[in-house]
Amino acid sequence: MFNLINSPSDIKSLDINKLDILSKEIRDFLIKSVKTTGGHLASNLGIVEITLAIAKVFDLDKNPVIYDVSHQSYVHKLITGRKSFENLRMFGGISGYTDPYESKYDVFKLGHAGTSISLGMGIKFAADFMNEDIRPIIIIGDASISNGVAFEALNHLGEAKKDVIILLNDNQMSISKTVGALSKYFSDFMTSKLVLNLKDISKKISNVLGNSLKLNAEKIVKRIENAIYPNIFNVLGIKYIGPIDGHSIKNLVEVFDYVKKNRGPYLVHVVTKKGKGLKEAEENPAIYHSVSGIKSKREVTFTDVFSDVMVNIGREYKNVFAITAAMSEGTGLNKFAKLYPDRYIDVGIAEEHAVALAAAMSLKGVKPVVAIYSTFLQRSFDQLFQEISLQDNISPIFVLDRAGLVGPDGPTHHGVFDIGYTKILPKMVLMAPKDGEELEKMLYFAISIDRPVVIRFPKSGFFEFHKSAPLEFGKSEVINYDKNACINIFTYGSIIGNVFQAIESLGINYNLVNLRFAKPLDIDTILNIVSNNKPVITVEEHSLIGGVGESINSILLKNSFNNKVVNLGLDDIYYPHGDRDKLLSLAKLDVDNIILLIKNFLKS
Amino acid sequence: MFNLINSPSDIKSLDINKLDILSKEIRDFLIKSVKTTGGHLASNLGIVEITLAIAKVFDLDKNPVIYDVSHQSYVHKLITGRKSFENLRMFGGISGYTDPYESKYDVFKLGHAGTSISLGMGIKFAADFMNEDIRPIIIIGDASISNGVAFEALNHLGEAKKDVIILLNDNQMSISKTVGALSKYFSDFMTSKLVLNLKDISKKISNVLGNSLKLNAEKIVKRIENAIYPNIFNVLGIKYIGPIDGHSIKNLVEVFDYVKKNRGPYLVHVVTKKGKGLKEAEENPAIYHSVSGIKSKREVTFTDVFSDVMVNIGREYKNVFAITAAMSEGTGLNKFAKLYPDRYIDVGIAEEHAVALAAAMSLKGVKPVVAIYSTFLQRSFDQLFQEISLQDNISPIFVLDRAGLVGPDGPTHHGVFDIGYTKILPKMVLMAPKDGEELEKMLYFAISIDRPVVIRFPKSGFFEFHKSAPLEFGKSEVINYDKNACINIFTYGSIIGNVFQAIESLGINYNLVNLRFAKPLDIDTILNIVSNNKPVITVEEHSLIGGVGESINSILLKNSFNNKVVNLGLDDIYYPHGDRDKLLSLAKLDVDNIILLIKNFLKS
Repeated sequence: MFNLINSPSDIKSLDINKLDILSKEIRDFLIKSVKTTGGHLASNLGIVEITLAIAKVFDLDKNPVIYDVSHQSYVHKLITGRKSFENLRMFGGISGYTDPYESKYDVFKLGHAGTSISLGMGIKFAADFMNEDIRPIIIIGDASISNGVAFEALNHLGEAKKDVIILLNDNQMSISKTVGALSKYFSDFMTSKLVLNLKDISKKISNVLGNSLKLNAEKIVKRIENAIYPNIFNVLGIKYIGPIDGHSIKNLVEVFDYVKKNRGPYLVHVVTKKGKGLKEAEENPAIYHSVSGIKSKREVTFTDVFSDVMVNIGREYKNVFAITAAMSEGTGLNKFAKLYPDRYIDVGIAEEHAVALAAAMSLKGVKPVVAIYSTFLQRSFDQLFQEISLQDNISPIFVLDRAGLVGPDGPTHHGVFDIGYTKILPKMVLMAPKDGEELEKMLYFAISIDRPVVIRFPKSGFFEFHKSAPLEFGKSEVINYDKNACINIFTYGSIIGNVFQAIESLGINYNLVNLRFAKPLDIDTILNIVSNNKPVITVEEHSLIGGVGESINSILLKNSFNNKVVNLGLDDIYYPHGDRDKLLSLAKLDVDNIILLIKNFLKS
Repeated sequence: MFNLINSPSDIKSLDINKLDILSKEIRDFLIKSVKTTGGHLASNLGIVEITLAIAKVFDLDKNPVIYDVSHQSYVHKLITGRKSFENLRMFGGISGYTDPYESKYDVFKLGHAGTSISLGMGIKFAADFMNEDIRPIIIIGDASISNGVAFEALNHLGEAKKDVIILLNDNQMSISKTVGALSKYFSDFMTSKLVLNLKDISKKISNVLGNSLKLNAEKIVKRIENAIYPNIFNVLGIKYIGPIDGHSIKNLVEVFDYVKKNRGPYLVHVVTKKGKGLKEAEENPAIYHSVSGIKSKREVTFTDVFSDVMVNIGREYKNVFAITAAMSEGTGLNKFAKLYPDRYIDVGIAEEHAVALAAAMSLKGVKPVVAIYSTFLQRSFDQLFQEISLQDNISPIFVLDRAGLVGPDGPTHHGVFDIGYTKILPKMVLMAPKDGEELEKMLYFAISIDRPVVIRFPKSGFFEFHKSAPLEFGKSEVINYDKNACINIFTYGSIIGNVFQAIESLGINYNLVNLRFAKPLDIDTILNIVSNNKPVITVEEHSLIGGVGESINSILLKNSFNNKVVNLGLDDIYYPHGDRDKLLSLAKLDVDNIILLIKNFLKS
């Protein structure tokens, strides 16, 4: 069956039985291919029937389907002509997220949660204005919908009454455990066994209405929509239907057919099982949320180091709290959480709230360590401004994993702006470790100072330097000083590993400085080093605009430095997905390219 | 009575009658003083009784009171020893917002909406951990609570069950009209005349319960909390009481006493009238939201120009939409809104949603002009990243009013980071007009190009140049070129007015470039101008870190420029509140300071 599906229209002709067979085939395909390549397995196994039912009922050539976060769009990809999953998430291969460049059936590049309702509404606002009759279909998970921007959109939708269809894919798990009252509220449905099919709904209605013949059709519809359960969505003016069994194509098709015939904003609450069809994934959906594919070796990563150091810190400092936003496993805080559950807070996908919460906790004298990926902390920029930087006596520690090119997850997840958006805020202290040992030092140091601190490191291992000068506030570390140096190199973070290997292989005299602090910058050391007036290279795994190189340039310019300067870092473009090493080479930050650059630089 | 109140404890001894008298005195004081100095009048008139009732019931030396946005904290200031309102919002005088530097009764510096619940929870988390028995009291308006971060906090609160008290100050107006389903939901209460006092509540309870004697006390309490009306808050697990008449101190004290005796998260829904006690403010609360005080003259501002140009644009371009986030008057979009209501969207205080919505609308082919203050667009940084910059074929226009030192509103409102946080995003085009005529040009130009555009201007008038070279993409405007120039000056935005007046008064030969674009920078012109190798000054009303000067420095350094460079702009600190001219002088961006600087610069 699966072989015959090349576009959504091929689904239309299949009856429920055939769709059931197809869903099994797709599930088998996913398990086999994603286990090999790596990717989001559990969430896609959970959404097979929903995706097929959408294609069965709605015309996807007309109605845009928007997947929130879009990590659960694999089945959508498979039925829209994208079956080359052997290259999934690889350089040049299929993206792990929706991408309009790949297919006309993808509308946006998405990887951050909660915006899909706004986007669907925007399309509908514009379409209505242009008298174009389309209905955006939005698929959003129970964790994403608790994000602030989703609520802002729901609040607007309930008033604007735009004709969009929201499918709430409620798998009760999200990435880590779903957090929050809304989630508890959903799960109350489950425990009260309220999962319904249309027959159940009809029965319930007739119980409520008694002899429904006395009512006209419109009134019955109204009752179906609102009478089943008073809930947050119909309080907001959105018609709610559910909960529906998300693995029964028959039920889904019936309900979608009903919604299709009616108008106005609908939320269909669909209950699914994350990892459905793969026993180990059903039992451990958090572990199978994103699988790594087949790997030969497993190096020690910064995340591993952070995870272990936090356990020690938790033991030694009784006032340290760990806060995360639905990324317990990803950040490595799960170990801390297990040992010190009373000092661990997972707020769910609510980065803004996480930062404001940490601010107030810090003011009261505890020390919050807030672990959020670089790219996701962007969501808290205004809280970093108002709740953190603007206040006095507030000193949380922000640990930014995935700072740099993140690899297979691609541009929605690259963390390449954090120096830029945090260095502009007064009082902030910015650090990046060269290796695991230095990360440990920096964490302890950050705990000891009364300033808000941002520590960034990439999703990777590191070149081990095995020694590290004592850490001093605002002081860099001179890794190599040579009075006959022909070049001065300043690096920020673990990219120094590549630089060190490159420069050592060249056998030249050089100065190499591990900046350690992007703010405050160690101006004394910088000026001291460049007093030889030899060419300068700065290196960072960050956008050149807004990066540390730009700050150093200003220092050099103001101090009449008069030789060549090259800033290595990321260009003003979005880097694609692919193997991290491949991307580093694309950005010319790999050892070979750095060797080449230094050679040419010294020649010219 | 008012004269006798110097600290919250002075309220304790007053009975309800005396508190009623006091509230009248405070209202008279506010009307008289705020009408003179300017400030937030209507919202503070609406909150007099609530503030007094809090002080009557709760111990403010123990329990922190957190005002969301905190523009409605004037009464709180008056009863906590801060009565010198003759200097309100003036340089060195009392801030228009809460500020711990002013008083131990203020907890945070706040001016952006929606974070108060997170902050109260953070304090409570830390206090619980330290076994400190305090209860944060949070005062939040009906518009602020619809902001995403507030929902994230409510969602967490309902699960964490922290013992905080939220007072929802529902004045049904907020700054402009409150928007959204939540607001409609609140107003349904009003129209159904459900504003209750405790007696009404008891009566209602007994109606519900029948013979309440059969139930134990605990069960009755439970019913009081939840049975009155099924609503969004108790769906989330927060105990809801209300709506209560917010101008009856007697009712408020009764309800607060009740809440004080009980435990867990409470939301008390208090209904107030914005502008209460001042007839014209009651009738026009939007106009009296923030009054300007007594002014001698009224110059034409950038906001005025934007307001008028948008009317013309709306007429000429039928696909242009205007979007704002609860700032219809402040941004000047009210004129557009009146003429083209079907192309105007006010999403309420929901900046994240506004930007994501605009992104999707733009993708569908309409042209959204999104008018949000510079400081508030910070809240949408992640949407500027994912929904705008990362996508292709998306080209909304962002109009950033209040970009620069905003004056009396102070550091929560200064818009001094926007160049920094937008220039790091690929594809973004950054512009700033020197005067009103150029703003008009830039708006039309922005409509004509298929790129996301950010246009910034301060809350002020401008020096009129009365002529302006045609606008070209990425091209600056040379205002004065002199082959014998002894200095090269590059300016971004209307601060050029001060620079021009300064340099003209000096009678020297100079080059002056109006950059127009911060991104892409006009590298050709910059290099052409500095080929004379004369000293360079860059000037911008923006943080020097992340500003346009930093970008120019890199260009100069890379092109072997070898003379002095000074970057004028804002230091890495928070500038206080006060008259805008005073603040510009503090930042050395006024005419006199620029004259002085150029003199010294050329001398040295």
